[in-house]
Amino acid sequence: MSYEDVLLAVRRISKCVIQTPVITSTTVNKLTGREIFFKCENMQRTGSFKIRGALNSMISLKESQSLRGVTTHSSGNHGIAVAYAAKLNHLPCCVVLPKTTAEFKVKEIRSSGAEVVFCEPTQLARKEACEKVQKERDMVFIPPYDHLDVVAGQGTLGKEIMEQIDDLDAIIAPVSGGGLTAGITVGAKGIKENVKVYLAEPKGKDTEPSLRAGERLWPNPPQSLTSVADALTTQQLGQVTWPILKELAEKEVFTMTDEQIISAMKFTWERLKLVIEPAAAVGVAAILSDQLNRIPASVKRICIVLCGGNVDLDNLPW
Amino acid sequence: MSYEDVLLAVRRISKCVIQTPVITSTTVNKLTGREIFFKCENMQRTGSFKIRGALNSMISLKESQSLRGVTTHSSGNHGIAVAYAAKLNHLPCCVVLPKTTAEFKVKEIRSSGAEVVFCEPTQLARKEACEKVQKERDMVFIPPYDHLDVVAGQGTLGKEIMEQIDDLDAIIAPVSGGGLTAGITVGAKGIKENVKVYLAEPKGKDTEPSLRAGERLWPNPPQSLTSVADALTTQQLGQVTWPILKELAEKEVFTMTDEQIISAMKFTWERLKLVIEPAAAVGVAAILSDQLNRIPASVKRICIVLCGGNVDLDNLPW
Repeated sequence: MSYEDVLLAVRRISKCVIQTPVITSTTVNKLTGREIFFKCENMQRTGSFKIRGALNSMISLKESQSLRGVTTHSSGNHGIAVAYAAKLNHLPCCVVLPKTTAEFKVKEIRSSGAEVVFCEPTQLARKEACEKVQKERDMVFIPPYDHLDVVAGQGTLGKEIMEQIDDLDAIIAPVSGGGLTAGITVGAKGIKENVKVYLAEPKGKDTEPSLRAGERLWPNPPQSLTSVADALTTQQLGQVTWPILKELAEKEVFTMTDEQIISAMKFTWERLKLVIEPAAAVGVAAILSDQLNRIPASVKRICIVLCGGNVDLDNLPW
Repeated sequence: MSYEDVLLAVRRISKCVIQTPVITSTTVNKLTGREIFFKCENMQRTGSFKIRGALNSMISLKESQSLRGVTTHSSGNHGIAVAYAAKLNHLPCCVVLPKTTAEFKVKEIRSSGAEVVFCEPTQLARKEACEKVQKERDMVFIPPYDHLDVVAGQGTLGKEIMEQIDDLDAIIAPVSGGGLTAGITVGAKGIKENVKVYLAEPKGKDTEPSLRAGERLWPNPPQSLTSVADALTTQQLGQVTWPILKELAEKEVFTMTDEQIISAMKFTWERLKLVIEPAAAVGVAAILSDQLNRIPASVKRICIVLCGGNVDLDNLPW
């Protein structure tokens, strides 16, 4: 994947996404001794960055074939994004959801006109139900992260960040399957080759040993993490995203506990007045923790990617 | 008071305040059939617009006399703003608070280095305690709204809105004592004379009959309202703010119930991902209600002032 793919994605999706604002805070700058910029993808359409990849993926498919409809399985922001992207592209859509999915997300998906099919809350049941939908209804699967078009779509975010913030030294972004971080890396380095991209993850993900070794050290079969950051439960990076991050991401990975994540989330609501979800708080937790010292002091201007803001306001984690 | 006073305030305070972002939402535009702009003063330093007036007031005083310190009584954002402005101006500060004040606000005021004096939760006790502080410590009182310097300080917000949004037709702002709305009116009309300024209020305030009659029809002695919007409990406009609003504000006033305010607040958190306090939700409630039809359809581009975001996250109103 190259920066050209990101530029193509920009041409495809830029009319349908918002250039989200970048916020600063003197309090945070004082606390950290750096210049911190918060990129508000929580304010993106559908409430997360996921719309970028979903749209690029769908438009790319439309360019190469006549689509009858699209489907995916997701308990989170990807499902909301695919439903919304399908609406924009006038395509029938069916989202497979574990029957334990929070009611507000089900509502959100249906409000875009997508059909919802419930399944048992296991990865296998999700996959099977979705394959059934693909076969029976002739719908095409929109992958959540491990696909070039999805990564290129998220890459538009990296480009946008570099265009909005002058002389940026580094970006810290939350990592799960790696679609967001791989995309950001390619998009940002296309504009400034030596900008550093750091990953922030919930405890248990253990990305750093793999990055340092240059090989996939995660246990198999792939496992799910249990974390308050419910959008970051994929332990392993994907087959498409891993080579990109192995080559281009910094080796220092910020690993945060649930307690640190919740505290950073509340801090962001209180201080920045931004509604962010736990996944988006992992990067905030990183810069508020001692681990920030792992970034050289010369790395001054740092952007934290607030990846999403879809939270159940009736069930807050504090 | 004139636009020149606002320009003077800009020169005094602009280095110490943030130019807060303006946010739009396709969902809201569709719901309302207008082009709505949200001015995020919830992201202002101290979490509300109040810092503008407090700073202008304090700097103006410093220009004319040698100040030993400042004081005020407030259960809310004005106290936080005065404490912070005093810190910026290296002045000792004492804030009189009703002993029922929420703990997070007390903390916030103390974190700026101000001293806190508690009193009984009545207007009389607040006034008396504050007068004692003024006399004993030779501190000067910073008024919350009914003073030219405070109004001119808030006026910088009106000017800023007009500079950020092209061809704006109208502004809707929440009203309590009238400092914010009077300031915005003078500041905005200094740039575009025919921009309309509408007031949004909690039920029981009854500003419209007074505006229409051109005289103060409120019952005396002045009463406090009971509303979920705890920053908007002053029933009467002030002696300084009333003549300005009588002359320049639109006669149609939007009056919202607690239920409408809470629902609009939650909507703003969910959809715009912005943490706003109930007072800031009154304008949002207005455009989501049938009362929006009272604004002519030709008034297309409307700015809603989100005046503050100081909320106790452990005690949400839903």
